[in-house]
Amino acid sequence: MEVPLLVTDFLRRAGALYADKTAVVDGSRRYSYSQLQARVHKLAHALRRLGVERGDRVCILSPNSHFFLESFYGTSLIGAVLVPLNYRLVAADHEYILNHAGVKVVLVDHELTSVIDEIRPQLKTVQHWIVAQDEGDAPAGWTDWEALVAPESETAPEAIDQDENELVSINYTSGTTARPKGVMLTHRNCTINAYGLIAHLGVRHEDVELWTLPMFHCNGWGGVYALTGVGGTHVILRAVDGPEIWRLIAEENVTFACMAPAVLRTILDTPEGQRAAVTTRPRFTVAGAPPPSAFIERLERDLGWEFLQIYGLTETAPLLTVSRPDHHTRQDDWPRRARAGVAGLGVEMVLLDDEDKPVPQDGATVGEVCARSNVVFKGYWEQPEETARAIRDGYFHTGDLGVWDATGSIHIVDRKKDVIISGGENISSPEIEDALFQHPGVLECAVIGVPHEKWGETPKALVVLREGASATPDELIAFCRERLAHFKCPTSIELVEALPRTATGKLQKYKLREQFWGEGQRRVN
Amino acid sequence: MEVPLLVTDFLRRAGALYADKTAVVDGSRRYSYSQLQARVHKLAHALRRLGVERGDRVCILSPNSHFFLESFYGTSLIGAVLVPLNYRLVAADHEYILNHAGVKVVLVDHELTSVIDEIRPQLKTVQHWIVAQDEGDAPAGWTDWEALVAPESETAPEAIDQDENELVSINYTSGTTARPKGVMLTHRNCTINAYGLIAHLGVRHEDVELWTLPMFHCNGWGGVYALTGVGGTHVILRAVDGPEIWRLIAEENVTFACMAPAVLRTILDTPEGQRAAVTTRPRFTVAGAPPPSAFIERLERDLGWEFLQIYGLTETAPLLTVSRPDHHTRQDDWPRRARAGVAGLGVEMVLLDDEDKPVPQDGATVGEVCARSNVVFKGYWEQPEETARAIRDGYFHTGDLGVWDATGSIHIVDRKKDVIISGGENISSPEIEDALFQHPGVLECAVIGVPHEKWGETPKALVVLREGASATPDELIAFCRERLAHFKCPTSIELVEALPRTATGKLQKYKLREQFWGEGQRRVN
Repeated sequence: MEVPLLVTDFLRRAGALYADKTAVVDGSRRYSYSQLQARVHKLAHALRRLGVERGDRVCILSPNSHFFLESFYGTSLIGAVLVPLNYRLVAADHEYILNHAGVKVVLVDHELTSVIDEIRPQLKTVQHWIVAQDEGDAPAGWTDWEALVAPESETAPEAIDQDENELVSINYTSGTTARPKGVMLTHRNCTINAYGLIAHLGVRHEDVELWTLPMFHCNGWGGVYALTGVGGTHVILRAVDGPEIWRLIAEENVTFACMAPAVLRTILDTPEGQRAAVTTRPRFTVAGAPPPSAFIERLERDLGWEFLQIYGLTETAPLLTVSRPDHHTRQDDWPRRARAGVAGLGVEMVLLDDEDKPVPQDGATVGEVCARSNVVFKGYWEQPEETARAIRDGYFHTGDLGVWDATGSIHIVDRKKDVIISGGENISSPEIEDALFQHPGVLECAVIGVPHEKWGETPKALVVLREGASATPDELIAFCRERLAHFKCPTSIELVEALPRTATGKLQKYKLREQFWGEGQRRVN
Repeated sequence: MEVPLLVTDFLRRAGALYADKTAVVDGSRRYSYSQLQARVHKLAHALRRLGVERGDRVCILSPNSHFFLESFYGTSLIGAVLVPLNYRLVAADHEYILNHAGVKVVLVDHELTSVIDEIRPQLKTVQHWIVAQDEGDAPAGWTDWEALVAPESETAPEAIDQDENELVSINYTSGTTARPKGVMLTHRNCTINAYGLIAHLGVRHEDVELWTLPMFHCNGWGGVYALTGVGGTHVILRAVDGPEIWRLIAEENVTFACMAPAVLRTILDTPEGQRAAVTTRPRFTVAGAPPPSAFIERLERDLGWEFLQIYGLTETAPLLTVSRPDHHTRQDDWPRRARAGVAGLGVEMVLLDDEDKPVPQDGATVGEVCARSNVVFKGYWEQPEETARAIRDGYFHTGDLGVWDATGSIHIVDRKKDVIISGGENISSPEIEDALFQHPGVLECAVIGVPHEKWGETPKALVVLREGASATPDELIAFCRERLAHFKCPTSIELVEALPRTATGKLQKYKLREQFWGEGQRRVN
């Protein structure tokens, strides 16, 4: 018997088996699985009533919240496609994405409606504007989420005959150009990824997960499905704050969390006096950049908690590799444990040279990290040429450069694509360069990622001024901040005489990065 | 990206990542994952050389052994279909199955070649006869496995373009009639089942599994795939023996085992003086009948080991439900923990009445246990009418009768089909009745399952003799033993005056069973 692998199955199971268990804790609100399921059903009915049909796009712009969690299932249940927006982007980015994806309904957190109002006239396809708030009146031009769903039935909407290769979501990510790309994830991608999380991160019924990770990031990393499927409890964290995280871990008996290294640092750096007394031994899964070894040691040796490093991309749903103590990895071998690690179940990894031939597993030869798996995305929304560039000869090419050893353990050392990853978010260098080029004094510029203690990497611009021009680095940074989301702006600018180029005039960013990354092999974080 | 879900992926991963880790311990032999993989590759090449093509059937008749483990992967790698035989059957059963499945190659353990030699002239499709033995000469008419694979390459055979809905194996099971049915399991069935085992049985990298379960049973329960995929270690047990099990648990640091209740009893009943000192805390998964609560208590409270009850059938690859401590189940609620439990991930369970309507979840109303899932088999080999009977209206009908409560917890109470499950093996009542009817003194008979301390159930025959006939129960049992595999023979026979029938003359086995199953609701084990 072949039954489609659908992400909605995870909530169906929890709703049927753990109706009275706490599904989600969000501030003072607590919903059991039957309540969560009822809310999801009501949302699905309401979206249908608004005219949302199978394949239609619905976006959500929100910090973590129970509404966000509900939106994943509410859309999938009726075959709609969720477009989770990064709330760190500026209005112009949202405008591009909403129009590119052809979004019909926007679901927006009450603190972010003004961002959308700013671009409302330019949003050609949006028909409905829903504001998510637990209380208060909806602003003008917005329909209140709770009022919208109130009249709807709590029973499951009529099932549709879905195929597992239909879309769950489109996740926009900065690419090698300034133009964001919409990563299409299918039910099959997300289901297999959730099984991988359960297998490798040990997600289980007893888990209480603190959402230290933004739900918009990599489709919520699949935790939305894995944790729900086993009937665990979601604890919402709206904004990263050290003492608040300690409080929630202690009060909600948190056992599990996923985070970028910057969040791990915030937790470890919370002063003793602001730490609540924790009695659980939470597992912390870190992705994005590997944290310094010292962090892992502090977490495992000093706190007695558990550390797991994983690696993946939005394009891979995201879990590709995992690093944990195993046959080859001692618990206290912190540097090895900070690596990307080894391929998960159902994932075939290979490091390829420029001619797409595997590089030797010698721990030294650099190759592009490539993957073949059911977690690899379906393609970029309406950008078939970009899809063909990324998935070729049966492998998804991540754009990350790594080395691997005889045990299959992968260590990321550099990035082929011109992307900076800061605090877990992708930043496109060309996008910053485009902004700088708008300044009349800028003749040439190159933006690279340089190491940053908290964010892993941060953008740095090297600028050659036109003859006679006199802009200062601070002026140029301020110029960028007027045009770009703040997290994308260079944190330092250096005025230089010239940029290193090849004989054919091609900019050698590799050489620029070298001077900032010291002796080691690694030039990304 | 859609990549076929193939069971061969589990060994590919372990071979690539854990080459030097012990894959299998079989007596004095120990093979690492690279050795196991090399042996599997050599077998695959050898089978190809013998003319085995995609879709061809290869059978194995063997107690647990490293050869058996190798046969699963060696066949799947080249798209061949494994037919694992139950070594408790008699030659006539094997003859039927081998001819029905049209087997091309037989792989047979050195202790069992004579069983096959007995029926050799009747096996019309078999072309090659391979004997599995670690040492010694092959008997006449048999090719030695080691000699066969010796000249072959250790590298992976050329990949074939397999579909995930192609067959992995055909597992013959006794049905409601005397005619065995071949359960076809696909790559997709087995892969999703393995993910379920990993999720619900917590199968992990550190696991050392003792094969207390025969590998022929339910396609090895999927442990062949799940444990291999995470790089655990298989410890072979050739025959169930209490002190030997204790020795292996202690010496190999066993952490995990699957078994029928009879094996659990053997382990618990091993006298103190014959128990090796165990330092691990193994998890024991029990399937088939639920063990008495006292067994669970002895295992968890006295030994400090872990108990998990699961439920499934060969037709479901097999994992359907799992019972473990959870939101609704206290650790010491032994009777609840002995139940079949709740649906696993990706499994939709429902209890249906005779009109295929769901029965209320009141813990009292009896319905047939039905499932909709990717673990449900593809159908019965060349018996489409049986397939249509078993899978209808989108649900596989197990033939087991149960009750379920508001938490979705299922308790099996009776069986719709005329099957007795003794020591985990299906026995067809009509097959025994057919044998009894061959006796000239038997006028009428009915075979039912009655409770048995060790085997859960055992067949009992109620016989009405012809007037003037004078056979004793012992004579009738001896008569059966000449015609049937020993495990299928009645262990008791009662001579009665008449059998209860409905007005239309239909035999009421339900009434017969009542008197042997006491007060409770349950009439199967």
